[in-house]
Amino acid sequence: MRQVETGREAPGPDEVEQAARDLRPHLTPTPLQLSRAFSDEAGCRVHLKMESFQPIRAFKVRGALNKVMHIPEPQRPAGVITASAGNHGLGVAYAAAAFGVKATVYVPETANAFKVDAIRRYGANVVPAGRSYSGAFDEAVRAQEQSGATFVHAYDDARVIAGQGTIGLELLADLPDVSTVLVPIGGGGLISGIAMYVKERRPGVRVVGVEPVGANAMRRSLDAGEIVTLERVDTIADGLAASAPGRLTFELCRRYVDEVVLVQDDQMLRAIRLAFEWEHVLAEPAGAAALAALLYHRHAVAGEKVAVVMSGANVTDEVMLRALQTR
Amino acid sequence: MRQVETGREAPGPDEVEQAARDLRPHLTPTPLQLSRAFSDEAGCRVHLKMESFQPIRAFKVRGALNKVMHIPEPQRPAGVITASAGNHGLGVAYAAAAFGVKATVYVPETANAFKVDAIRRYGANVVPAGRSYSGAFDEAVRAQEQSGATFVHAYDDARVIAGQGTIGLELLADLPDVSTVLVPIGGGGLISGIAMYVKERRPGVRVVGVEPVGANAMRRSLDAGEIVTLERVDTIADGLAASAPGRLTFELCRRYVDEVVLVQDDQMLRAIRLAFEWEHVLAEPAGAAALAALLYHRHAVAGEKVAVVMSGANVTDEVMLRALQTR
Repeated sequence: MRQVETGREAPGPDEVEQAARDLRPHLTPTPLQLSRAFSDEAGCRVHLKMESFQPIRAFKVRGALNKVMHIPEPQRPAGVITASAGNHGLGVAYAAAAFGVKATVYVPETANAFKVDAIRRYGANVVPAGRSYSGAFDEAVRAQEQSGATFVHAYDDARVIAGQGTIGLELLADLPDVSTVLVPIGGGGLISGIAMYVKERRPGVRVVGVEPVGANAMRRSLDAGEIVTLERVDTIADGLAASAPGRLTFELCRRYVDEVVLVQDDQMLRAIRLAFEWEHVLAEPAGAAALAALLYHRHAVAGEKVAVVMSGANVTDEVMLRALQTR
Repeated sequence: MRQVETGREAPGPDEVEQAARDLRPHLTPTPLQLSRAFSDEAGCRVHLKMESFQPIRAFKVRGALNKVMHIPEPQRPAGVITASAGNHGLGVAYAAAAFGVKATVYVPETANAFKVDAIRRYGANVVPAGRSYSGAFDEAVRAQEQSGATFVHAYDDARVIAGQGTIGLELLADLPDVSTVLVPIGGGGLISGIAMYVKERRPGVRVVGVEPVGANAMRRSLDAGEIVTLERVDTIADGLAASAPGRLTFELCRRYVDEVVLVQDDQMLRAIRLAFEWEHVLAEPAGAAALAALLYHRHAVAGEKVAVVMSGANVTDEVMLRALQTR
């Protein structure tokens, strides 16, 4: 993939606190809800951070709003550009609509029609390009260079990371004595923001990342001490199917993340079903990854106060039907 | 069914405002979210009031908390009693746990095992009694008379109605120029609280109730000018399967509700599917009834600003599978 200039150093906790203040008029904090059923099952106190209740049903709206609202006035008329067939595209389209900025979203030609429709509904210009995410990404970067629009990277951007970090701030406010936070990892923007903030402000809290077995780029990169790019990714969690961490997100995860655990597709499907049956909330595979890690690594958190980031609910009919039939 | 003394006159808007102040430390207001997809579909501005995001995934927690927190100190040790196999039972169990009060919930012997487990998880004593709701209700009233516990009626109680009415208060605060509010009707507690508050404070807003065709007791009672008891109810929406309105709720609906429209089971199932596919939120049949009314009575709200109360998400696997397969 082509490089894109994100133009900033990694953000710190002050940037997260600033982002929280900036987001307040635009976004209601999400609830952190005690789950008695998952607590009984896992043998610890389980609190679910409901990012799936966000207006776009995913945390991505935080980072996208924090990025778009800080585009300098002279650059706004040129609009924003991004590449995504998923929740980041929705987040950018939502943020652009909120601030009256023109958005162009490059999507792979194979993108899910429901998601493309949802992105269009926010008024974004959707451009199918390439057969995969990296094809769409390359086209988006090329278009950005020609148009002067602001590129909004899905994870490797200081403003985006600071926006996602506001989840960490809300967690510490709602559950000051949390002991472990479980967070899914795709490109790493979500966990980078949360881990950096939580560790800077409360170093005793453990932050554990969760990757699919078939998309374990962050785990392998951390093990290797340098960015590793996977030749192929294979996971039901399209939201976590990144082939490599970003430069900023790798740097932040290396510094702040305690551990990365792996989950399998069928474990995420079972977590989707149990989230539905026990808590009556929707989760997409990425959104259920941290819950799957809780269920299948419960020995590691016995007796603790655990926060599980339920990162998104944008699940397809097909996956939901599979999950409901998974025993 | 036996009578139960609810001991109060119908509440007014001041009681709702008091309830909102009293509930604030215990319950986060639910979001009111613009749905672009349903707006496009229905030809009006559709805002969804997400009671399905409540900790028990239903609005019932409002009324139950408002009732339980005002039990006079000397009566608290005797605990609370109710009859319910559903969301009201969950609400009472939740509220009792929050205030350290003992709760006993009478459920029909046929009650859904997941719901019974969920009620038990809040520490409530669950007593199976009778083959239907009215059997469980009679047993609960008998036990209440003997024990001196406080009976928490599911809808015909001033405190319960005032608690549900806080939804109306939040709606007017979030969308001051709302023109129509769509609200499902079971026993009528939800719509009584909302309609009374909204009409008292903003008389120009239209409040429309929604009942299943097979459980239309409020519509028939309003048409008759007196309480009508159905000989049988037949609906997929267990949350709306009341055979008669309450005394207080009939009185309030007669005074404040503009109209009651009817929806069919397959219309609720389709609304559940579209809520899932377009908005990625869960709804039980009762929780999708108002959305079904929007879809099938859209001519009546063309061009308006409409608030749709998504009252609950506690849907079973079986119903969800049926909904996903409904075209």
